[in-house]
Amino acid sequence: MIQFRKYLQARFFVLGMALILQISTAYSQEHPQLNLTKEGVAKIRAELGKVPLFDSSLADIKEEVDAEIASGIHVPIPKDFSGGFTHERHKKNFLILQKAGVLFQILNEDKYAVYVKDMFMAYAKLYPTLPVHPQERSYARGKLFWQCLNDSNWLVYASQAYDCIYDFLSKKERKYLEMELFVPFANFISEGNPQFFNRVHNHSTWGNVAVGMIGLVMDNDELLQKALYGLKTDNLTAEMRDNDGGFIKKEGQKVGFFANVDEPFSPDGYYTEGPYYQRYAMYPFLIFAQALHNVKPEYKIFEYKDSVLLKSVSTLLNLSDSDGDFFPINDGQKGMSYYSRELVTALDIAYLFGGQNPELLSIAEQQGKVTVDDAGLAVALGIRNNEAIPFTKTSLELRDGPEGDQGGIGILRNEGMELVFKYAAQGLSHGHYDKLSYSIYNNGNEIMQDYGLARFVNIEQKGGGNYLKENTTWAKQTVAHNTIVQDETSHFNGKYEIGSQHASVKSFFDAESSEIKIASAKESNAYKGTELHRTMALIKDENYSFPFVLDVMRVTSDSLHQYDLPFYYLGQLMKTNFSYDSPKSLEALGTKFGYQHLYLEGKGVVNQDNISLNWLSNDIFYTMTAVSDKDDELLFTRIGANDPEFNLRRDPGFIIRRKNVKDAIFVSIIEPHGTYSPVSEFAVNAYSNIKSVKVLQNDEKYTAIEIVFTNDMVKTLIIANSESSKEAKHMVTINAKTFQWNGPYYLSNK
Amino acid sequence: MIQFRKYLQARFFVLGMALILQISTAYSQEHPQLNLTKEGVAKIRAELGKVPLFDSSLADIKEEVDAEIASGIHVPIPKDFSGGFTHERHKKNFLILQKAGVLFQILNEDKYAVYVKDMFMAYAKLYPTLPVHPQERSYARGKLFWQCLNDSNWLVYASQAYDCIYDFLSKKERKYLEMELFVPFANFISEGNPQFFNRVHNHSTWGNVAVGMIGLVMDNDELLQKALYGLKTDNLTAEMRDNDGGFIKKEGQKVGFFANVDEPFSPDGYYTEGPYYQRYAMYPFLIFAQALHNVKPEYKIFEYKDSVLLKSVSTLLNLSDSDGDFFPINDGQKGMSYYSRELVTALDIAYLFGGQNPELLSIAEQQGKVTVDDAGLAVALGIRNNEAIPFTKTSLELRDGPEGDQGGIGILRNEGMELVFKYAAQGLSHGHYDKLSYSIYNNGNEIMQDYGLARFVNIEQKGGGNYLKENTTWAKQTVAHNTIVQDETSHFNGKYEIGSQHASVKSFFDAESSEIKIASAKESNAYKGTELHRTMALIKDENYSFPFVLDVMRVTSDSLHQYDLPFYYLGQLMKTNFSYDSPKSLEALGTKFGYQHLYLEGKGVVNQDNISLNWLSNDIFYTMTAVSDKDDELLFTRIGANDPEFNLRRDPGFIIRRKNVKDAIFVSIIEPHGTYSPVSEFAVNAYSNIKSVKVLQNDEKYTAIEIVFTNDMVKTLIIANSESSKEAKHMVTINAKTFQWNGPYYLSNK
Repeated sequence: MIQFRKYLQARFFVLGMALILQISTAYSQEHPQLNLTKEGVAKIRAELGKVPLFDSSLADIKEEVDAEIASGIHVPIPKDFSGGFTHERHKKNFLILQKAGVLFQILNEDKYAVYVKDMFMAYAKLYPTLPVHPQERSYARGKLFWQCLNDSNWLVYASQAYDCIYDFLSKKERKYLEMELFVPFANFISEGNPQFFNRVHNHSTWGNVAVGMIGLVMDNDELLQKALYGLKTDNLTAEMRDNDGGFIKKEGQKVGFFANVDEPFSPDGYYTEGPYYQRYAMYPFLIFAQALHNVKPEYKIFEYKDSVLLKSVSTLLNLSDSDGDFFPINDGQKGMSYYSRELVTALDIAYLFGGQNPELLSIAEQQGKVTVDDAGLAVALGIRNNEAIPFTKTSLELRDGPEGDQGGIGILRNEGMELVFKYAAQGLSHGHYDKLSYSIYNNGNEIMQDYGLARFVNIEQKGGGNYLKENTTWAKQTVAHNTIVQDETSHFNGKYEIGSQHASVKSFFDAESSEIKIASAKESNAYKGTELHRTMALIKDENYSFPFVLDVMRVTSDSLHQYDLPFYYLGQLMKTNFSYDSPKSLEALGTKFGYQHLYLEGKGVVNQDNISLNWLSNDIFYTMTAVSDKDDELLFTRIGANDPEFNLRRDPGFIIRRKNVKDAIFVSIIEPHGTYSPVSEFAVNAYSNIKSVKVLQNDEKYTAIEIVFTNDMVKTLIIANSESSKEAKHMVTINAKTFQWNGPYYLSNK
Repeated sequence: MIQFRKYLQARFFVLGMALILQISTAYSQEHPQLNLTKEGVAKIRAELGKVPLFDSSLADIKEEVDAEIASGIHVPIPKDFSGGFTHERHKKNFLILQKAGVLFQILNEDKYAVYVKDMFMAYAKLYPTLPVHPQERSYARGKLFWQCLNDSNWLVYASQAYDCIYDFLSKKERKYLEMELFVPFANFISEGNPQFFNRVHNHSTWGNVAVGMIGLVMDNDELLQKALYGLKTDNLTAEMRDNDGGFIKKEGQKVGFFANVDEPFSPDGYYTEGPYYQRYAMYPFLIFAQALHNVKPEYKIFEYKDSVLLKSVSTLLNLSDSDGDFFPINDGQKGMSYYSRELVTALDIAYLFGGQNPELLSIAEQQGKVTVDDAGLAVALGIRNNEAIPFTKTSLELRDGPEGDQGGIGILRNEGMELVFKYAAQGLSHGHYDKLSYSIYNNGNEIMQDYGLARFVNIEQKGGGNYLKENTTWAKQTVAHNTIVQDETSHFNGKYEIGSQHASVKSFFDAESSEIKIASAKESNAYKGTELHRTMALIKDENYSFPFVLDVMRVTSDSLHQYDLPFYYLGQLMKTNFSYDSPKSLEALGTKFGYQHLYLEGKGVVNQDNISLNWLSNDIFYTMTAVSDKDDELLFTRIGANDPEFNLRRDPGFIIRRKNVKDAIFVSIIEPHGTYSPVSEFAVNAYSNIKSVKVLQNDEKYTAIEIVFTNDMVKTLIIANSESSKEAKHMVTINAKTFQWNGPYYLSNK
C-alpha cells in the first residue's frame, strides 16, 4: 500500500501535466460521461494519494486488472452453464473490462485502453459468428451466456469500458466495434428477444439498461428510447411464461426502464421480488440512473417517482440483519449482503446524488471499498473527513405494490432481535407461497428460519448453478415457511396466476412504543372461504434480558379443515414438556406441496394447555411456548425426504397440526432467555420465563391473550380484530374486568 | 475503566501506607502463601493502575464480586444435578470465594474478607448437617454436589480464599472453620471416598489437590501426605468401576498427586485422557504445583519428571486448532478452548515458573485476561513491556504413556490445514474406541470431524448436564470415527478392560519437509488376527493453492471380514461421480456398536477405479477421491437413528464398505481446492485437482500410491511397511522403474 501511494504521488505529477494537455484539446463529444465524467476524473486525479479508502479501492482494481492483463485475452467459444469455464470467463471479462476502462481514465496509462480495445476486438471478431448459446434451458437464450440476462450484464459493464476508451479509439475502430459488436448485441437482447426485453422483471431491467447504456455512449437515441420505453411492437401473448413459471407480459403492460421503476418499486422503495433480487437489480437501476443523469439530465431520473431509486438504497439496507445479510424473502440466497459489489455501487451513487446522507458513510466503511469513480470519490472523501455517523436500523414497515397498497413487509426490531413479517404481494415469478409468514433473527443469527431458495448460485455442480427443481417442489411451497397450511395444500394451490392477483392486507403496524412493536395483517385469498389473520409482536419487559415474540394466528373458515403451523427453529433441541413417539423408520410426511420433502421424526398427541419446546442455538437458549388444543398433533420434521441429490439442508422443523375444525387460533411465544458458553460451561437461565399463555377471548371483534411469567407478572394483549384504526375507541369486559383504550391493540401489565 | 483506574490510583496511596504497617508487624506464619504470596501482593499493589491487562482483569473480578456481595450469601441445601439451581449456586460460590479473597489481599478492603468469612461460616453451619447428596448417579457422591469431584472443586478454590483471609480471622474463628468445615470436608473426599481419592484419574487429581491445598493452608502435614501419596490403606478391589466404566484401581497402582503426574502424563506432556480433560485437570495440577512450590519448595515440583507440568501447558496449546479450540479427542466437548479459565491460570503459572516464554504472552493477549495474582502480574507486565511474540503451532508428535511408549497423537500442519492422527493408548475411562482415527481442520473449521462427546455439559435439560447414554452407544463406538470397523463391531469389542491394555504402535513421524508431513502407525490388537496400518500425509504442491491429505489404510487379516471406512465430512454435498439408490424410507444401518444410530440415506455399488465426493463447507470446496474396488458398497449415512430425545447432531457421513476379504487397502485423498462466496457469487476451482489415484503396489514390504493431477503432474508415494527406521536403505522396482531411497517413505514428483 505504501509503495502504491508513492506510485500515485509520482503519477500525480505526470497526470497534472496530462490534464493540462487534455483540457487544451477538449473533444467535441464528452467522454467519459456515464459513471465517470470528465470533471470527475479531473477531481479524482487531483485527490490521488490523499483519500485512503479511494486509494486502496483503486489499488485493489489495479492489482486485479494488472494480473489479468498479464494473463492475456481469453474469449472462449460459449459453451457452459453458470459456474462452468466459459461462463465464468466471460463474466470475469466484463468485470475486468469495466475496471480497466476506469484505470485508463484515472491513471492515464495506455496499456489499460489497449487491453480494453484488444478485448473488444476479440469479441467483435467472435460475436458475429455466434449462434444462440448451446445450453437450451432458458426462455431467452443469450449468445455469450446461456441466458440473455447474462449477455445484458456483459453489455452494461462493457458500455462503461467503451465510454472510458471512446476517445482513445479512432473513428474507424469505433465504427467497426459498433457495427460488429455493440449494435448487433443490443439488437439481439432487445428486438431479438422481446420475451426477455419487453417485461417487468429484473431480467428486463438488465436488458433495458444494457441497451440504454450503450445507446448513451454511442449517442444513439433509437436505442435509448427502446431502453426507456421498450419495443413498440412485440409478438408476446398473455400465456407466455419464463423458466420460473412467471408471466412474460400482462395485458396492457407498460414496458421499458421506466415501467420497471414504476411497477416493482413501492413508494417506500421496496422491490416486490424481495431483497435478493432488489440487490441484483440495484446495480443496473442506479448505474443507468447515474449515466442518464449525467448525459440526459432532462429526464430528471433521480427525482422520478418521488426519488424512489435513491430511497430504495436505504430501504434495501434496512432489509438486512445485524450482520448486513439480506432477509431471504422469496427466492433469496442466504449470505448475500450489503457487502456485495452491487451495493457498493448503489450506495456510492445514492450518497453522491441523494443528498450525501452521512449514515451511508458508516456502511461504506464496513464495505471497506468504494467504486472507483465520481460517486466513490465523494464517499471516500466523506469518510476521510470524518463525516460518517452510524446507520441506525429501526422497526419499519415497507409497503409493497406500485402504489403501496399491496400489503408489505413489517420489520420489528428491539435489542438485537429482528422479526420479519411478510404480508406482501406475490413478488412476481420469484415469489414464494407464504402469506403471513415470518422469520426471526437474534444478533444476525437465524432463530426461526425462512428457508430461502433451493439453488447454489453459480455452482456448476448443482444443476449448472441454476434453480434446482426443489426450489419449486420445496422452497416455494407454503409448508417450507412459518405460516399456516390448510389441508396440506399450498396457498393459492401453489398457482402463480392466482397468487399474483392477490396481496395480503395490513390491519395495523405500530412500532412507537419501546415495550411493544406490533404488526397485524389479514389474508383472505390464500384459501377460498378461509381468512387468516396474524398479529405479531416483539415485546420487551424490563424484568427480563431479551425481547420475545408473541404470535397470534387466527383462522376463520366456512368449512372444516386441517391446519398445520410449522416452526422452522434452528439449533439443537433440548427439551419438550410433552411426550411423543419416535418412528422406527423415517417416512415422508406427504406426497406433494413440499410435504414429500419432510421426514416425520416424532409425533405426539397432547391434552395440555401449553406445550413448550426448548432449544439451544449459537449459545442462546430459546423456548417456544404455545397454546394447545385437545387432540392437537405435534410433529417433529426434518427436511430431506425425496432429495436424492442432497440439494436441501437437513434442517429441523416442528408442526402443530389441528384437524377437523372450521376456526382455530394458534398462539405462541418465541423467547430467548438464557445463554451457554462451551468455554466456561455455565448455563444461565436455561429455562423459559413464561409460566403460561392463554387465550382469554377470541371472537370477531377481539382476541385477548394472557401471559403469566415466572415472576408472576401478567401481561394481557387485546387485539381489535375488526376495527383497527388508530382513533377507534374500544371497550371490552373479560373475566369481569373492563378494558378501555384507543387504537388497534392494548397491552396491560400487572 | 478510566474511573476504575482513578480508583486504583487513590487506593495505591492508602495501600502504600498499609503495606508499611503490615511489614512492621509481620506475622510468624506467612499468609497468603498459595497462589498469592506476601511479596507478590506487595509487588501487585505497587503496580496497580500501571499494567493494563492486570488492571482490567482486576476490574472484572471486582465488578463480579461486588455484585455478588450486594446479592448476599446463598448457601442452599444441596439437591440438583449439574445445571440445576443448587449445583450452579455452590459452583458460583467457590469461584466467588476465591476472587473475594484475592480482592481482600490486593485492595485491602475488609468487606471482601467479611464476605468470605460469612460465607465460610454459613458453610460451617450447613456442612455437618449434610448427608450424602440426594442424587444417586455417581460412584462417589459428594455432599454439596452430586459427585465428590465437584466437592473437590469447591475445596480447591475455597482453600485459596481461606489462605487470603487467614490472618484476618481470629484463632478461634479459624479453629471453628477447620473443625466444622475444612477437616471433615477433606476427610470425606479422601478417607470417606477411597474409590474416588485413591485412583489415577482427573477426578482423583482434583481430590488430591483439594486435600493438599487445604493441608498447606492449615500447615497440616497429614493431609499433605495423603494428597501427595494417597491413602495408605483402602478397601478397593480390582473389579470396581466408575460411572464411565473405568477401572478404579489396578493391582499395585500407585496413587496420590505424584502418581497422577507420573502416569497420565507422557514425557511430551500429553495427558492420556485427551485435551478436554487435560484442560480440566490443568487447573488443579498447576495451582497446586504453584502452592507447593511456594510453601514446600523442597519437593521441587516444577522440576518433577523433567518439568512435565510446565511442559504440558505448551503441549495443550498445541492440541488446539487455529481458533484455539481443543481437538475433541476421546470425550471432549467441542468449543472448549484455551480461552477457558483453567488455561488462563495454567498459562500464567507456566509463564512465571517456566522461564517466562514470550510466546505464551501472545496467547495471554488473545485470552484478554490474567489471573489476579503473582503469575498474572508477571504475564501482564510482559505484555505491557511488549515482550509478546507469536505462539507458533507446528507439526508435532505427542507421545502417549508414562514412558512415552504407548503410541501418540500426530499433528500435521501446513498453511491452515491441520490433520490430527490418533494412534494413542485408550485414554482411561474417557477414551473412545477409535484406533488410527483422524480428523481434519481447515483454518479452524472441521472438515472431517471427530464427533466428540455426547453430552451437553452442565445443561440440566439434557440428562442433568451429565454424560448421555448416547455417549456410550454412539460417541465412543468405532463407527462414530474416521477409522476402520471390522464386521460392524467396535475395536476391542468396545470393551474397556481389553482396550486399556493396548496402544497402537508408531511406525514413523516426519514433519521436516515443507512439501510433505507424514505419520504412520499400526494397530494389531483392535481386532484379533487383523492388523491395521495407516499412513497419513499432508502434502503441499506449489502448483495448487491448498495442501491435501493422503490417507493409506492397509488391512491384513488371517480370515475373511467386512471392512467399513467412514468419512464424517462436514458440509453440503455437491456432487459424486457415481450413482446410488436412495431409499424411500430411512432405516437404521444396524443394531449395535453405534450402527443403530446411523440412518442409511443412499447406497451404491460401484465398478470404477476411483470414486469422488465433492462438498462445500464454510465456503471452501472439498473433494474426497478414493481408490475403489469392484463391488465396494458406498453408503450415505446420517446420524440420528434411535435418538428419540434429539441428543445427537444430524450430521452426514459416508462409508466405503468392502465385504468378504482378508486383506484390503483403502486409499483416499481429501483435498480443499476452491472457494465460493455467497456475496460475490463466484465459484473458483469448484472441482478437484486430482485426475486419478492408484495403488501401484501393496505388499508386506512396500505400498506405492500414484496420484495424477489435472495438470498431468504425477506424484508417487512409496511407504516402507516393515522397515521404517530413518537409516534403512530401500530399493523397489515398480512398473519397470526402480526407486531408491533412505528412510521410511519416498515421494517422487514428475
